Amino acid sequence: MSQNIYDTAEFFAGYSTMRRSIEGLEGAAEWPAVRAQLPELAGKRVVDLGCGFGWFARYARSVGAASVLGLDISENMIGRARADTHDEAITYGIGDLEELELPEASFDFAHSSLAFHYVKNFERLVTTVYRALVPGSRFVFTIEHPIFMAPRSAGWSTDANGQRIWPLDSYAIEGSRTTDWLAKGVVKQHRRLGTTLNTLISSGFTIRHVEEWAPSEQDLAEHPEWVEELDRPMFLLVVAER
Amino acid sequence: MSQNIYDTAEFFAGYSTMRRSIEGLEGAAEWPAVRAQLPELAGKRVVDLGCGFGWFARYARSVGAASVLGLDISENMIGRARADTHDEAITYGIGDLEELELPEASFDFAHSSLAFHYVKNFERLVTTVYRALVPGSRFVFTIEHPIFMAPRSAGWSTDANGQRIWPLDSYAIEGSRTTDWLAKGVVKQHRRLGTTLNTLISSGFTIRHVEEWAPSEQDLAEHPEWVEELDRPMFLLVVAER
Repeated sequence: MSQNIYDTAEFFAGYSTMRRSIEGLEGAAEWPAVRAQLPELAGKRVVDLGCGFGWFARYARSVGAASVLGLDISENMIGRARADTHDEAITYGIGDLEELELPEASFDFAHSSLAFHYVKNFERLVTTVYRALVPGSRFVFTIEHPIFMAPRSAGWSTDANGQRIWPLDSYAIEGSRTTDWLAKGVVKQHRRLGTTLNTLISSGFTIRHVEEWAPSEQDLAEHPEWVEELDRPMFLLVVAER
Repeated sequence: MSQNIYDTAEFFAGYSTMRRSIEGLEGAAEWPAVRAQLPELAGKRVVDLGCGFGWFARYARSVGAASVLGLDISENMIGRARADTHDEAITYGIGDLEELELPEASFDFAHSSLAFHYVKNFERLVTTVYRALVPGSRFVFTIEHPIFMAPRSAGWSTDANGQRIWPLDSYAIEGSRTTDWLAKGVVKQHRRLGTTLNTLISSGFTIRHVEEWAPSEQDLAEHPEWVEELDRPMFLLVVAER
């Protein structure tokens, strides 16, 4: 059973005020990079793991997906997703990715945004997704980058010259990381980038693209504060094929 | 034209005293991880890019490789490789990986140890290797890990609590890094891990394994000083298939 931090009042209140919660996909810095990696979704049966408020489910339908199943551990998130969605081809369900079960060969595309770094048993999850997809399907997901997640005490610092640095440690020590983000005691699961990729490969997936998100020059013109993202990656985007 | 630091007297003298230069493959911490990823080499035509003193070439022949072509930019290295090798099935040549040319479909296995992070035009190199291999061939190489290479000033530091940290910055800023290692002004080429993998993928390779080397418990029992390698990876091992 995963920690369900999204259903604590403090976390949910904080999460609900984030730009990506108010503006949806367009409010997420990494969305243009994700969108650039999406296959043609028209006619596809889509599953979205950690669907949150349903922004991606509704986007997929807006570009012609035949159906979308959105799953999330949070009753708060699914409640709001259902309230915000008026589309019989979208189904939402409450589900723990740690114990995910999906019908075999029933989807043509799988997506997940910033959910898998809460999952302990990534191998089980990947195997389940592999079986749920038909051959040739894409699997596009983002997680927090392991460089972002690894440190015992994650946060910016400065070196002796006053330059901004990301004090990395414990990169090879995989497992739980407890941080205070929107609420105290949020537990995430650190895995090396290689471990994430090797788990996909050994489950049968082919790696198609690996992107350690960084702002473009245009991004920096619009959001100068994102310059720190050049120093260490926050998001990892992976594209795999069944 | 690549910088040829190995032919400066200071660098070559320093390099020659390293454990891996004296003991060969067994003196390299990452060798067991590399060896575990090698295919059966018996009967294979092998190319080794950045062959140094020829340790890998001789190993490949010792396990039955049909022939080995070893290339290195350094006359010093090739001179010693030739002096230390008495095997007509091993050929050494002086060659700049930046301008590498290989006959098409002429090799069954390609190897490189800690050489590609000196190469600016990695895409050209990868395309050349792809064409030189026959379908089904493996390509196994190590480079310095981009976390190790990225910082403006790479080296251990401590945080306010006295804990060892690796002060990371500039991870997304690809290109030259000038460091003092064995000699002053050694120029390396930083690429994000994703860039290395995407270059292989877009050239036609399939990624088979990605390993961010870390010491095992047994390694740490024998070399307690390697514990710092748990905090940030030094070596990246990639296995691709043509």
